[in-house]
Amino acid sequence: MNAPTAPTHLLPATELREVPHQLLTELQARFGARCATGLAVREQHGRDESPFTHIPPPAAVVFAESTTDVADAVKLAAAHKVPVIAFGTGSSLEGHLLAVQGGISIDVARMNKVLSVNAEDLTVTVQPGVTRKAVNDAVKDQGLFFPIDPGADASIGGMAATRASGTNAVRYGTMRENVLALEVVTAQGNVIRTGTRAKKSSAGYDLTRLMVGSEGTLGIMTEVTIKLYPLPEAISAATCSFPSIEAAVRTTITIIQMGIPIARCELIDAASVRAVNAHSKLNLREEPMLLMEFHGSPASVKEQAELVQDIAAEHGGESFEWATTPEERTRLWTARHNAYFAAVQSRPGCRAITTDTCVPISRLADCLLDSVAEADASGIPYFLVGHVGDGNFHFGYLIDPDHPTERATAEALNHQLVSRALALQGTCTGEHGVGLHKMDFLRTEAGDGAVDMMRAIKRALDPDNIMNPGKIFSL
Amino acid sequence: MNAPTAPTHLLPATELREVPHQLLTELQARFGARCATGLAVREQHGRDESPFTHIPPPAAVVFAESTTDVADAVKLAAAHKVPVIAFGTGSSLEGHLLAVQGGISIDVARMNKVLSVNAEDLTVTVQPGVTRKAVNDAVKDQGLFFPIDPGADASIGGMAATRASGTNAVRYGTMRENVLALEVVTAQGNVIRTGTRAKKSSAGYDLTRLMVGSEGTLGIMTEVTIKLYPLPEAISAATCSFPSIEAAVRTTITIIQMGIPIARCELIDAASVRAVNAHSKLNLREEPMLLMEFHGSPASVKEQAELVQDIAAEHGGESFEWATTPEERTRLWTARHNAYFAAVQSRPGCRAITTDTCVPISRLADCLLDSVAEADASGIPYFLVGHVGDGNFHFGYLIDPDHPTERATAEALNHQLVSRALALQGTCTGEHGVGLHKMDFLRTEAGDGAVDMMRAIKRALDPDNIMNPGKIFSL
Repeated sequence: MNAPTAPTHLLPATELREVPHQLLTELQARFGARCATGLAVREQHGRDESPFTHIPPPAAVVFAESTTDVADAVKLAAAHKVPVIAFGTGSSLEGHLLAVQGGISIDVARMNKVLSVNAEDLTVTVQPGVTRKAVNDAVKDQGLFFPIDPGADASIGGMAATRASGTNAVRYGTMRENVLALEVVTAQGNVIRTGTRAKKSSAGYDLTRLMVGSEGTLGIMTEVTIKLYPLPEAISAATCSFPSIEAAVRTTITIIQMGIPIARCELIDAASVRAVNAHSKLNLREEPMLLMEFHGSPASVKEQAELVQDIAAEHGGESFEWATTPEERTRLWTARHNAYFAAVQSRPGCRAITTDTCVPISRLADCLLDSVAEADASGIPYFLVGHVGDGNFHFGYLIDPDHPTERATAEALNHQLVSRALALQGTCTGEHGVGLHKMDFLRTEAGDGAVDMMRAIKRALDPDNIMNPGKIFSL
Repeated sequence: MNAPTAPTHLLPATELREVPHQLLTELQARFGARCATGLAVREQHGRDESPFTHIPPPAAVVFAESTTDVADAVKLAAAHKVPVIAFGTGSSLEGHLLAVQGGISIDVARMNKVLSVNAEDLTVTVQPGVTRKAVNDAVKDQGLFFPIDPGADASIGGMAATRASGTNAVRYGTMRENVLALEVVTAQGNVIRTGTRAKKSSAGYDLTRLMVGSEGTLGIMTEVTIKLYPLPEAISAATCSFPSIEAAVRTTITIIQMGIPIARCELIDAASVRAVNAHSKLNLREEPMLLMEFHGSPASVKEQAELVQDIAAEHGGESFEWATTPEERTRLWTARHNAYFAAVQSRPGCRAITTDTCVPISRLADCLLDSVAEADASGIPYFLVGHVGDGNFHFGYLIDPDHPTERATAEALNHQLVSRALALQGTCTGEHGVGLHKMDFLRTEAGDGAVDMMRAIKRALDPDNIMNPGKIFSL
């Protein structure tokens, strides 16, 4: 493993590539008004939820409505060796959508059809612009649901491209485990399928999982087949306060090690509870809190809840609150759902720099506690929320964007945190992806040999480097 | 999708590549007696459990004892552009180990150390020669187990290389879901790591899952980190007879669709029960049989068993037998464990040609019943066993190897079966891999574009085509 290098710059040295006028003419001939070049629409497609600013927007936005649209747009761009960047809902946190080398944005939000629900097989095939909430709306009448829930109502294409997860991953896995097959437009503008609807397969290289998490650098997804789950017969949610983060984390570790099939196990720290109380006029105990959910038959949910209550009590857990109806559960989860906005609003005008480390659960307490001490010592306000059942957590450092030392301090904290996570056999990113922000971290984490292998794959599949160039690694 | 081509030949047209004497001298200088060139040991490494015969053995066998051994052997071979084929236990069913282009075998069976058990994280890191039973022996004292169980006591390296699964996959997934990270020796003889011990990650391309299922064509695994599970508090097994295969399959479909977390759900057909009765002097009802297992807390296992009993009864299931102690469960599973050998021994001197299709579970009855009718009409004796909870099943056509028409008939039946499975959105191989046997099927299933993408990856990572060449696809 290389020693991590300090984040001396936020953006890799890249250069804008020219978008010839001829390409814009060809795109407008093919797509008419669905190829937009107005500044407002380009700027909207040239930013995301990342802390990066001042990057020029793409030269044009193509609003694709079909696989053929995507393939044609890619073919036209490929002929001019111009970059293409797929755009879903714009909720990336790591700069995935930014046109750091110029090029055109292909917006797939209008590709929002649910193509086929196969309730018997627990699968659904959707276009990439369908959001996770839209999937759930489409399948709930059949007693099914799709569990992956990043904070935003992200598009399924974007979630697959970043290997997203969320609060249910501890039980249901991430996009890695839940994407069954893809239709993909390649860098040459060809359309391929990466799998079938069979639940398992040993048929050649796992192109599905190569594409999942490739952040648009190897192809653009135009159909996504994902797994569904029967809506649980019973759901029970609970919150519990702890005397320390360590006690909450130790409780989590025991739950996981005992094999209790907990569906959600989230941590929020005392400061975030305080922010939520202020924001939502609540009166929660201002201590570290675990928020949990149990899915199963009524008997199984009761059994899980009793076991967890015993474990929590052994670690000083108090003030258990339980909820079973949807309304009560929503109320109980308010603190978690509002933590981000409550924290950001607690410092007006601030911008959150969000971390995403994930470590083996046995190392979670070590990783968290040392990083909390460092964040406290820095004086930068922050919030801390975590999918702790998976060993994944997010600090949000609330910086004044006009104050360069604050940004540098936050980046230094993140850097220390990632170094610690890697030393504990963890990863720099549990669910947000590498994008622009973690390219140095990836090299440290994976090693030069593995990154060279990624580069070799990229060069083989996209020799002109037109698919979302400048992300994940430099070429 | 292309129309499947008839299997006019079993082996692709390949040519033996020269192994220069200089390489053998260099290998012997480096490995001494651990580089063997005697005919017996070479022949042992030049065959597997596949129906292929008459393929010349490798020119030498290197018995590797460390990652450095593997890396050095690959480097020496790479300098001469000579093929290398990793060898674990030799239990491949599809010709993966055969030296169709010549070269050397790298036997990793002596790399059989369990490197670290991380009970708190439910992971274990092993060398590739450790077998699945050895893993379980190493972790059972800590109350843990590794569920993936192909029929043979295969090596973990071989299981990862073929994306293996088995009877527990319906609940615990396959090697795709259960390999967390790898150490791999590349075609250049470099050593890379493909992941960390974090449970989830969005850090770049998923090299772990690219390697899993790549059948030794992209690199040789030298360390494998896999997931473990807490031994269930309670286990209950059951067998149940059905008036028809259709009734057994409909029962299975309902169990899966209701989300019952069944741990095993296996089918054996009436002919196989008959063979088992003859082989093991048993008196089982000679009807299609489901063999099931339930894992969980005592209350949960009881609940699952009651639900399944009700579902089976609705489909005419009878003669339920239950077992909870290990001894009783073993007795109950005798029929499943002995089905293969009982069937093969029912026709002395025969060889089994085994199929491996997997379809979405809603299509399982259609796929199975039509294929049973075809097999019956052919007059070739066969057995049928299935991991039906996953939609995966195996016909074993029991052919006289000296009778060319029988082999052709069996291949034609397999061909019809695969065509049917692909038309039903399934795969030609659920768990055995492509190897030599299914290269034409893969092209039909995945399409030329996807296979071309696999080829491009192969050429990029192994430009001299030395890693197990001639498997999965032709170059």
